[in-house]
Amino acid sequence: MKKVAVILSGCGVYDGAEIHESVLTLQSILKHGGSYQCFAPDKPQLHVINHLTGEVAEGESRNVLVESARITRGEVKAVTECNVDDFDLLILPGGFGAAKNLCTFAVDGADCDFDADVLTVCKAFADAGKPAAYACIAPALAAKVYGNSVNLTIGNDAGTAEALEQFGIKHQNCAVTEVIIDSEAKLVTTPAYMLGQNLLEVGEGLDKMVQAVFAMQS
Amino acid sequence: MKKVAVILSGCGVYDGAEIHESVLTLQSILKHGGSYQCFAPDKPQLHVINHLTGEVAEGESRNVLVESARITRGEVKAVTECNVDDFDLLILPGGFGAAKNLCTFAVDGADCDFDADVLTVCKAFADAGKPAAYACIAPALAAKVYGNSVNLTIGNDAGTAEALEQFGIKHQNCAVTEVIIDSEAKLVTTPAYMLGQNLLEVGEGLDKMVQAVFAMQS
Repeated sequence: MKKVAVILSGCGVYDGAEIHESVLTLQSILKHGGSYQCFAPDKPQLHVINHLTGEVAEGESRNVLVESARITRGEVKAVTECNVDDFDLLILPGGFGAAKNLCTFAVDGADCDFDADVLTVCKAFADAGKPAAYACIAPALAAKVYGNSVNLTIGNDAGTAEALEQFGIKHQNCAVTEVIIDSEAKLVTTPAYMLGQNLLEVGEGLDKMVQAVFAMQS
Repeated sequence: MKKVAVILSGCGVYDGAEIHESVLTLQSILKHGGSYQCFAPDKPQLHVINHLTGEVAEGESRNVLVESARITRGEVKAVTECNVDDFDLLILPGGFGAAKNLCTFAVDGADCDFDADVLTVCKAFADAGKPAAYACIAPALAAKVYGNSVNLTIGNDAGTAEALEQFGIKHQNCAVTEVIIDSEAKLVTTPAYMLGQNLLEVGEGLDKMVQAVFAMQS
């Protein structure tokens, strides 16, 4: 049974983890015989977005770990508690939270900062030769972790791809129902809602992502 | 193509719509060739629960419609805008929000109040002879709407079943992966997380629920 560490970034596409991507990824892990433990940074979100209007909710503050607990029905740990030795592989779903709370790519592009604790965990999996999968915009973190000509995708947005290539990665255009596999780096990426129009096609891509990363030896 | 109205009750199992149930229900609707429009009441939640600790977040207030928009990526309307003529059938996923924000069954049991706008919509589907499905604890609303010996389930919790029977319904024990069908009332119910232990078995029951309600003629 593959033991999977999953890093979430809040709860809601515009300021946290994308909910559909997170739920379908967790379901896919179970479907393919794996188990999971979710983690998230214990810190304030960059901001709170009113998801009905798309506007910043001025004066509101929410914690990434506490909001992530909504997706996991309470079962989530601080990312500082994630020990690479306890897991076979790592998965990061997307949502703007990955590019606002786990790093600041959504705001700063290639000049972005990275959450030090999240980066430590991501690098630990890479350094241990353990496989990892990043969906949607989360490959922005993979670009920092792997750099050096690794192949990855965030779909087909030229501007985003160009910004990521400043980390030294090679961007590959990819359909929402497909994945990009870098066998050497043991990295799988899929566009999810960077391209996806609905739960069916996003679910298909995420399921392929989970299958591909499960097929890799750690 | 079946056109489905879905009523949500926030975003998070302890104070809103259960996220896994909501996402898997929406996915199942698409999978079986349907389309959906989500609705929620535009009013404050009963309270905000910190999902990490399970405690009430004192002093915090969130709006049911605004939080529901997290699950729907922004696409949700006030329940007062739901016109039964525009849809073939109605589905309510569960979560404590169904029993805290759509009615107060979680607090008041059989003496609970019901959100008048939600009740109006639910009754409109019943009165029009259009099928409906209620998951998890949402059958508490179905008990009020249908009453009169209708068959439904909330799983196998004797205390909850007894409280619901005060509305005149007949409770049927049911496994998480199964559904209870009342053909005459055109009502389908499934226990979901009232019994479910994980995304796989909850997803199986919800998918059967969607299939069963899609098979009914409106």
